[in-house]
Amino acid sequence: MDSTTFLFIIEMIGTAAAAISGIRLAANKSFDWFGAYTVGLVTAIGGGTLRDVLLDIPLFWMQSAWYLAVTAMSLATVIMLRRQLVRSDRILFIFDSIGLALFCVIGIQKTIAAGYPMWGAAVMGVITGAFGGVLRDILINEAPLIFSKDIYATACLAGALVYWLVMLLGGGYVCQGLACAATVILLRVLALRYNLALPSLSAIPVNNNK
Amino acid sequence: MDSTTFLFIIEMIGTAAAAISGIRLAANKSFDWFGAYTVGLVTAIGGGTLRDVLLDIPLFWMQSAWYLAVTAMSLATVIMLRRQLVRSDRILFIFDSIGLALFCVIGIQKTIAAGYPMWGAAVMGVITGAFGGVLRDILINEAPLIFSKDIYATACLAGALVYWLVMLLGGGYVCQGLACAATVILLRVLALRYNLALPSLSAIPVNNNK
Amino acid sequence: MDSTTFLFIIEMIGTAAAAISGIRLAANKSFDWFGAYTVGLVTAIGGGTLRDVLLDIPLFWMQSAWYLAVTAMSLATVIMLRRQLVRSDRILFIFDSIGLALFCVIGIQKTIAAGYPMWGAAVMGVITGAFGGVLRDILINEAPLIFSKDIYATACLAGALVYWLVMLLGGGYVCQGLACAATVILLRVLALRYNLALPSLSAIPVNNNK
Repeated sequence: MDSTTFLFIIEMIGTAAAAISGIRLAANKSFDWFGAYTVGLVTAIGGGTLRDVLLDIPLFWMQSAWYLAVTAMSLATVIMLRRQLVRSDRILFIFDSIGLALFCVIGIQKTIAAGYPMWGAAVMGVITGAFGGVLRDILINEAPLIFSKDIYATACLAGALVYWLVMLLGGGYVCQGLACAATVILLRVLALRYNLALPSLSAIPVNNNK
Repeated sequence: MDSTTFLFIIEMIGTAAAAISGIRLAANKSFDWFGAYTVGLVTAIGGGTLRDVLLDIPLFWMQSAWYLAVTAMSLATVIMLRRQLVRSDRILFIFDSIGLALFCVIGIQKTIAAGYPMWGAAVMGVITGAFGGVLRDILINEAPLIFSKDIYATACLAGALVYWLVMLLGGGYVCQGLACAATVILLRVLALRYNLALPSLSAIPVNNNK
Repeated sequence: MDSTTFLFIIEMIGTAAAAISGIRLAANKSFDWFGAYTVGLVTAIGGGTLRDVLLDIPLFWMQSAWYLAVTAMSLATVIMLRRQLVRSDRILFIFDSIGLALFCVIGIQKTIAAGYPMWGAAVMGVITGAFGGVLRDILINEAPLIFSKDIYATACLAGALVYWLVMLLGGGYVCQGLACAATVILLRVLALRYNLALPSLSAIPVNNNK
């Protein structure tokens, strides 16, 4: 198996994990199959779509029907294996983290390839990894989960920082990507285990004299 | 009257029907005139805008001021003829279905013209027809109606399937479009009459050990 | 100080005022630092981003890291000077209005430069000035404030009208921009002082026979 095939399989695993997370939340809103499929698809490809639109490059998921097909398989899985899903949270978390790491690396590398500086690539890494979930939460009419819990985006940001450091140190393309991905996964696992979170802002009283 | 003029008139009827549906929902949220106009406009042109942005082609509504003007007329109509509107639900439903069918066909044909395969065109047909309503519901802060009720998107999808079958059978451009549009309208009418809907997903219990 | 530097400083003041407005609302939702930063950034650059995507021109905030940096400084300010903020509502209102005026002028001028007619430029002036706030409200899961209160968008629209009139009268580029900006600021101040608002639509009863 060459590295392209390997990366493709990882990407599809990440796509399925993201789609299942979206479909589960859609199920809690009693959406129908179409609604659940759309929410799952947007969770899986929304971040990359936003990146491609912002960078003005061709949409990645319009180049191959696999993204739509994997989302359809994810929906079928959720419909048929509802009970088993609840017990496989740990596996889904691992798949989701691997997907997040890969999506983040892809976002960084596509942005650099489009000629933008590293800080722009870091923004696009975060968007690719974390904004599918933001769009998902907008569609199910909830405030975005990653804005108050979880360190999804922070993990991407730290990964981008490591990517940049390895690049400065003269590490190659593959080395940068692996270091970034490892950072993202490690931070997600540590955050889960030690219940790490960013500090919250507390409410600011409003001056009604405005 | 040539066919271009005929199609343009149908498109404006569909635009008005969509805008009125958005403005009515905005009225229920006590939005002001600007808010109602914006929600109406987004309902009417949002799906096509998303399609044009995703396909990276020029925005259709920036080529002609008619879309903005028809939305303004729709707002004026709702403000002045509130009472009569309630009694014209049946006419609005027919106009809305005709608009949906045309928007779906336009979405499919623009995507194929941009060089994408049929499955991509089907996605863009659904987006053009149904996502104005999704964006409308995001703006009025509700979960998208078409994710839990109505077979709006399913009708578009079936229309795209028929479009493809007629294309495979060697039917011409006009024939494909008419067959697709007829399918969309027929399914909408049947769904209303026999109360058809897609199955819903039921809530999935969450395992808190995650 | 040349005029480019002057305009840049005004733009950064407007960016900071918009970011602070977003961060304050995020704080009321108990978002964490990342969530607050994102909401602040989207409030500040969201309108211009939507404009650039719709016009298919390069994203303005990917050309300079200042927008991200000013948002970071705004977040630090809110975290450290919470109490003082409440008392500086008047200053923030002035900064916000100046920013709105400049954003509106920038939106109009970029659209005309892209070859669109004046009515398209007016739409983009409104989007640039007012839609950062709409995207902010979508992210914090509220119905957009400017759809039911405040004459944010109406001020932009009036500014665009004045821009057009001065253009028709043969006023130069700078003169058009200044007249437009003055109109926007004046209307905002008058609306605040005399509590002006657009009329609201009242709810329309639904006919259940549909």
